[in-house]
Amino acid sequence: MSDSPREIEALIETLARLPGLGPRSARRAVLHLLRKRGALMLPLADALRLVAETARDCLACGNVSTSEICPICSNPERATGELCVVEDVADLWAMERAGGFRGRYHVLGGTLSALDAIGPDELRIPQLLRRVREEGITEVILALNATVDGQTTAHYIAEALAGTGATLTSLAQGVPIGGELDYLDDGTITAALRARRRF
Amino acid sequence: MSDSPREIEALIETLARLPGLGPRSARRAVLHLLRKRGALMLPLADALRLVAETARDCLACGNVSTSEICPICSNPERATGELCVVEDVADLWAMERAGGFRGRYHVLGGTLSALDAIGPDELRIPQLLRRVREEGITEVILALNATVDGQTTAHYIAEALAGTGATLTSLAQGVPIGGELDYLDDGTITAALRARRRF
Repeated sequence: MSDSPREIEALIETLARLPGLGPRSARRAVLHLLRKRGALMLPLADALRLVAETARDCLACGNVSTSEICPICSNPERATGELCVVEDVADLWAMERAGGFRGRYHVLGGTLSALDAIGPDELRIPQLLRRVREEGITEVILALNATVDGQTTAHYIAEALAGTGATLTSLAQGVPIGGELDYLDDGTITAALRARRRF
Repeated sequence: MSDSPREIEALIETLARLPGLGPRSARRAVLHLLRKRGALMLPLADALRLVAETARDCLACGNVSTSEICPICSNPERATGELCVVEDVADLWAMERAGGFRGRYHVLGGTLSALDAIGPDELRIPQLLRRVREEGITEVILALNATVDGQTTAHYIAEALAGTGATLTSLAQGVPIGGELDYLDDGTITAALRARRRF
């Protein structure tokens, strides 16, 4: 649309770069925002700027935070001695949504990858080893993705933590709650069969 | 997530109010924005603020604009004497995307509605009548939606414009390009049959 105001076209193009929004839905979102300039458009601009200017990595765990230490690490009720190791912040958020874990986290920032030349020092693995030694961690839960890189990373961490006295565990693999066998991949079914338990 | 930074939760909630985004996709969008703070998050905040502060209704046609007169109205190549009447800016954008129209627009801002007590003076109908008289309009194209309120509004405008000398037309109704009869509603098929043309 050449006869469209430049500023509005620029906003649509920027918004269309968000995951889950394409040019069409970005256009629809901008129309909605234009109708609610004061109630939605300005608050959204302010919220984005505030987060962009204050968001940082938690110095302790690598979670995204607006303070030096994130709310999870600074919550004394969560100093349980359990440390959950995740690849990235999205995984931490998924664990928190599930709500079953009351310990603290350690965000690696990725996985080891020979192809992409990502070694332990590119991730927060040295910090993890230091935390396990210094913070009285009794259990390290490896909540890494069930991918080749995720599992390679898990094995590397397991070796590096041998001898620290911390128990190492990983998330169980099996049939998802509500899952139907007919729709599951073969790998999951095989893993669930191997890890079968007495009924 | 009680242990999540307040500012980030507020951003997710605000973003989730956009059409097409729910809480889950808003969360995913915020993770993406956090990874691209400088390249995407701040530019988006700035683009939103700029549009929120400069967007206004074009004084001539009611289109959204960042100047007193919108780029379409101020484009001399579009002063063709053809005026396309649409309900809202979304419809104007749809017409512009289609790209077949090179005249100018008039945005009513809604449709007449007895139920919602919306009369001609709540819409930009008086301005339309004035424009048709004063701007040398030769054809008024009624591109209103094929709804009861849309067609009521079209009939009202047609009566009000009787005697101005301007030709009144409306968008053709029929089978959409690429449309299959089997999937079309009965009303459209009947309208297409009634408006059949020699092959």
